[in-house]
Amino acid sequence: MDEFELIRRYFAPLSGAHEDVVLGIGDDCALLAPPAGHELAVTSDTLIAGRHFPEESLPFDIGWKSLAVNLSDLAAMGARARWFTLALALPEADERWLAGFADGLKALADEAEVSLVGGDTTRGPLTITITALGVVPAGCALRRSGARVGDRVCVSGTLGDAALALERWRAGDRDRSDDALDLRARLDRPTPRLALGEALRGLAHAAIDLSDGLAADLSHLLRASGVGAHIYGARLPSSAAFDRLAPAAERTRLQLAGGDDYELCLCIPAARLSEVRRLAQQIGVALTDIGEIQAGSGLSVLGAQCEPLAFTELGYRHFQ
Amino acid sequence: MDEFELIRRYFAPLSGAHEDVVLGIGDDCALLAPPAGHELAVTSDTLIAGRHFPEESLPFDIGWKSLAVNLSDLAAMGARARWFTLALALPEADERWLAGFADGLKALADEAEVSLVGGDTTRGPLTITITALGVVPAGCALRRSGARVGDRVCVSGTLGDAALALERWRAGDRDRSDDALDLRARLDRPTPRLALGEALRGLAHAAIDLSDGLAADLSHLLRASGVGAHIYGARLPSSAAFDRLAPAAERTRLQLAGGDDYELCLCIPAARLSEVRRLAQQIGVALTDIGEIQAGSGLSVLGAQCEPLAFTELGYRHFQ
Repeated sequence: MDEFELIRRYFAPLSGAHEDVVLGIGDDCALLAPPAGHELAVTSDTLIAGRHFPEESLPFDIGWKSLAVNLSDLAAMGARARWFTLALALPEADERWLAGFADGLKALADEAEVSLVGGDTTRGPLTITITALGVVPAGCALRRSGARVGDRVCVSGTLGDAALALERWRAGDRDRSDDALDLRARLDRPTPRLALGEALRGLAHAAIDLSDGLAADLSHLLRASGVGAHIYGARLPSSAAFDRLAPAAERTRLQLAGGDDYELCLCIPAARLSEVRRLAQQIGVALTDIGEIQAGSGLSVLGAQCEPLAFTELGYRHFQ
Repeated sequence: MDEFELIRRYFAPLSGAHEDVVLGIGDDCALLAPPAGHELAVTSDTLIAGRHFPEESLPFDIGWKSLAVNLSDLAAMGARARWFTLALALPEADERWLAGFADGLKALADEAEVSLVGGDTTRGPLTITITALGVVPAGCALRRSGARVGDRVCVSGTLGDAALALERWRAGDRDRSDDALDLRARLDRPTPRLALGEALRGLAHAAIDLSDGLAADLSHLLRASGVGAHIYGARLPSSAAFDRLAPAAERTRLQLAGGDDYELCLCIPAARLSEVRRLAQQIGVALTDIGEIQAGSGLSVLGAQCEPLAFTELGYRHFQ
């Protein structure tokens, strides 16, 4: 099977049939029609087997996750996801693998209504680079840099599920209980919060998506905004599966320093919080108020008695 | 050196200072402002060490070529190159290598006035994926599918230089003569024909860039347009260095089936040919009329006495 056949069979069905794709796969470039008065949001992420997902992950899940992590970046800008390109390096053209991978990619592409518009396939160690493109009305994107003193710090969904799943899997745990599978699904098939990001344009002051863990990612946002924040460890939202399976001593570390949540962290002016809650409810995404933006710099995590928790005890490393 | 420091030191200087970059590197996405009434042209190409360039290539040249092959696709659409993302997998953060690579990328980015707007760096076997974005007035892009019977088939620049350089290098030839270095420069630092592509919008009926060799790439164009063509082997343009170093028996094969030319192949209505020649001259790019589009299908290559040359004798394989 040569490259052209491979593209025709597995990837052409992903090109969708959206009006804003003027010319899809098959020429030197794709031609796209961004709507008037909009800016383009662009992001690229690479996933490498054994580094960004377990080697034995299902091809479906690898396809899903490769696109999800990119769409999550678009969600964090409040952009509407529209198109993506795929650069795929494969050790060999394994048809079963390709079919599963393309299915996973397609499942999320259909759900998010995005079109595959180009790319490249080469032989090499399994590496997936996706560049995702979205559109956002000019001047309306959510940025990391807009947080203001007094804003509420909110997060979507639940935190720590993917990190717990990864640690259990790395420790050799192959538990197939419903709880374990729920956690694993959060690691393998994260849900980019696109509808929430779009709905909060003009409402949230700042946003970032959670890929490296809440503490690291919120710290990026605080630096970009020139502010500090305190959050309450006990308020961090957790799933029922996490509550049952996470060792008590590890909870806060997993929720703060674990990665792969792909939830949004949002800074919301206090006066708009109830409006934002209503919107999130309509969309069907949980939104939890976990703390407040304050003057100064840095992130404080407060314990049950509002005592600051020492970062060094929480397993932080890569964001200090 | 962590990823953030690496980006700050080597890649942030590539973000340029162009008005249409609303928000550059450092947020979840870049924000770009395409001009009103334009379509977006998008292309992605991956280069792998030892496959798309010799392992021992200079880092400068690897940087240059990675961007050049993508800009060449934009040129073939008649698009104005504007932005690119870079996904870089590196075995280790070798600072000397990175500095050279970034310099090569920057040299061409500055020349083409494109901004680096995002990307990803990971540890892995040396692999470079660039996604390039350009803009083209709506409805004016050059496509592969527009060739009409009677069009002249023209190519820019000279053909076969890069293929000859690669074959000599693979055969162990380390000739450092001016001619050999000229050929090698064509392999390592191809020139995307951006100004020519833009100038020929509304004039050329069809275009494709030459990456896999004239015969293969022109065949793609013919299939997309539903036409055939004959070209004259003796008319294929060659450089002085190629004329002196190419073995007589290999000339036509190298020029037709050798890859990596990154010239444009254009189909021009005969009545506009002199106008197109003038434009090419103003831009300073040679343009050679090598044949004609005809009814039917397939590509005929004619010899000195207008006899059709047998493809099988010319070393074709991957496009039959």
